[in-house]
Amino acid sequence: MSILIRNGRVIYGENFEVIRADVLIEGNRIAKVSKDINEAADTVIDAKGRVVSPGFVNLHTHSPMGLLRGLADDLPLMDWLQNHIWPREAKLTREHIKAGAYLGALEMIKTGTTAFLDMYFQMDAVAEAVLEAGLRGYLSYGMIDLGDPEKTGNEIKEALRERKAIEDLNSDRVHFVFGPHAPYTCSLALLKEVRKLANEHNSLITIHVSETMAELGKIQERYGKSPVVLLDEIGFLGSDLIMAHGVWLDSRDIQILARHGVTVAHNPASNMKLASGVMPLQRLLNAGVNVGLGTDGAASNNNLDMLEEMKLAALLHKVHTLDPTVADAKTVFRMATINGARALRLNAGVIKEDYLADMIIIDFNRPHLRPVNNVISHLVYSASGNDVETTIVDGKIIMLDREVLTLDEERILDGAEKTIEKLA
Amino acid sequence: MSILIRNGRVIYGENFEVIRADVLIEGNRIAKVSKDINEAADTVIDAKGRVVSPGFVNLHTHSPMGLLRGLADDLPLMDWLQNHIWPREAKLTREHIKAGAYLGALEMIKTGTTAFLDMYFQMDAVAEAVLEAGLRGYLSYGMIDLGDPEKTGNEIKEALRERKAIEDLNSDRVHFVFGPHAPYTCSLALLKEVRKLANEHNSLITIHVSETMAELGKIQERYGKSPVVLLDEIGFLGSDLIMAHGVWLDSRDIQILARHGVTVAHNPASNMKLASGVMPLQRLLNAGVNVGLGTDGAASNNNLDMLEEMKLAALLHKVHTLDPTVADAKTVFRMATINGARALRLNAGVIKEDYLADMIIIDFNRPHLRPVNNVISHLVYSASGNDVETTIVDGKIIMLDREVLTLDEERILDGAEKTIEKLA
Repeated sequence: MSILIRNGRVIYGENFEVIRADVLIEGNRIAKVSKDINEAADTVIDAKGRVVSPGFVNLHTHSPMGLLRGLADDLPLMDWLQNHIWPREAKLTREHIKAGAYLGALEMIKTGTTAFLDMYFQMDAVAEAVLEAGLRGYLSYGMIDLGDPEKTGNEIKEALRERKAIEDLNSDRVHFVFGPHAPYTCSLALLKEVRKLANEHNSLITIHVSETMAELGKIQERYGKSPVVLLDEIGFLGSDLIMAHGVWLDSRDIQILARHGVTVAHNPASNMKLASGVMPLQRLLNAGVNVGLGTDGAASNNNLDMLEEMKLAALLHKVHTLDPTVADAKTVFRMATINGARALRLNAGVIKEDYLADMIIIDFNRPHLRPVNNVISHLVYSASGNDVETTIVDGKIIMLDREVLTLDEERILDGAEKTIEKLA
Repeated sequence: MSILIRNGRVIYGENFEVIRADVLIEGNRIAKVSKDINEAADTVIDAKGRVVSPGFVNLHTHSPMGLLRGLADDLPLMDWLQNHIWPREAKLTREHIKAGAYLGALEMIKTGTTAFLDMYFQMDAVAEAVLEAGLRGYLSYGMIDLGDPEKTGNEIKEALRERKAIEDLNSDRVHFVFGPHAPYTCSLALLKEVRKLANEHNSLITIHVSETMAELGKIQERYGKSPVVLLDEIGFLGSDLIMAHGVWLDSRDIQILARHGVTVAHNPASNMKLASGVMPLQRLLNAGVNVGLGTDGAASNNNLDMLEEMKLAALLHKVHTLDPTVADAKTVFRMATINGARALRLNAGVIKEDYLADMIIIDFNRPHLRPVNNVISHLVYSASGNDVETTIVDGKIIMLDREVLTLDEERILDGAEKTIEKLA
């Protein structure tokens, strides 16, 4: 299978140089990027007036949560979780979660996400939806034991069950990731066991850390130290760890994260909407920490649009520091592409020969993207997910001219609506 | 002329109640909103799976600035203005500005704005584009005299010339507004003359006030008081005044604005992108000040999308105050609709009998807007301008199913591209 994308503006290489070029995809790899490629290809796409961009890597989400979109807004995190989200989540069956996963996958395809790191329940059901959708999913079961040793064992067991089910699918596009929920919801015994298992299985780990001041207070009270120092002391940190949020980090925390090569997944929309706080982006980047970008779940965002998320990241840090030069367009574009791919050990996030063919085509024939004065600026500051026209993952076209080829859109929208009616 | 919109979810009345109803438009007014309207109509629109919403009122923009979109980002306000924007603007001819005005009008129609308050140059040219587009434009010539008495006279003369040209168009949809740029760029003589003329002509006034800390310093140095106190003392304030930005306001300023019934146009994207600061939204609302919403120009945003602007407003104030309950979805929706209409003395911003027929239809058959758990929440937190399908202004359909009926889209996009090439 080969695809030739002609006549587009291509965001090329690790430095996002915008060039007029054709892109040839062979199998699941980028074979050639240059002017006037003449090779024959199975599929030819005319990208005149369009931009060919790396697909986005959503580095922190809970993909089935689209079901709960808009059910409770304008509330603090713990009220929102304890009184609105967790009671509804307690009722979710495998079938409900799969309906939510289809909705999330559909939304991601339509807004240009090609890979994502997920945390939820019944992830083997999510994996089936992701496989069918054609996306790349890094899927973690969110473990919570609340210090109860019986639960610790059960959570580990469930994680390993889901891990096996996902590995049995035997796909390069879906991978299991260990996902202890957070230091305030997980015992040290659970966290230590996760570290051991991750080492054994060479798996990634993802966890929520330092999201709210309330969390900091709890950990300080329980352990007398910051969540990052705690995790460092139990040997939990490593370059295989993707820490979501990282809002309340002091200088010592940041140095520790840099030393261990931990990736932080920044979630500006969620941190703003839940009033969690502003993560110290510039200090993390200055310390050399790899920072990716995530939407968090659609219930605290309330969408999975990485283009919108880039704008929020850029704008939030400028106003917070009163410095308009921080979080410039290229920096946040890098967070949403290369940095995310690097965290997932994925040879993607870049359009260049030999990288995986995960890319999107964006229609620039729209008033808000004209004149085409600056492609990266327009993607970060002017575009939205709806501008994505074509999505290619692993060398396969999964959306062409806004039509999703892998999923039945109407059936999924109906399914989501019926699922939430059942939960009411 | 009559239009019947059937089977939609309608955001009804001043409290934005979401009901299933039909909407009958007769002439330029809303004639009836109820279930199962059987009257015949010249045009019938099926809004099944769609939401019928008041159109948005963009209360502060510089519509032709789309031309300069993305030409200079990630810079401080004065560097951005003095070294990038003003030099390019100095080259703009009437023809260039009209090309920019068409681009702005097109973008606004496609993202659901039905009325806007503008400040730029050659506003009679802008008025012609607005008339053709079918929008409502409140158009101010941005006066700057920098304390030079000769310039004062010339600026007043140009304003009155543009005023006459716009009034001569004799349309209910375009109106002249007096637009002295800001207290730091205008002499007191100019500001006093504007107040006198506005009273004589019963015109609105718009002005930038307290946008940056640097501005505050300048005014403090020159006059020994805050910009708001200064404007109060010269008798400039009134309920006919729409003040853009209002970022750096102290409690005394807020009380003064409330007492005079001044409207403040909030521009979260621009204030964030230029790192100007965070306006005290909650304190203004608590004091009873009317606050509307604006995108500012597309060069400091970088689009004119009021749906995105609502989300930015909601998220910014939650994280800034660390209180997720402020700037809730209905409050910012109100800012983007009724509050803006009230400032413009426009009987719009509400879908209810006898209001002007300025409304939009939004396609909710999209994954990021499903399930339809909460319509107002979805518009504020999940939607983007691209979701707007149909735009109706003054009882006329100006976009139907994403096709703009009043303007030649391709010609406008080409025109914008050619204009910026000439300016390079």
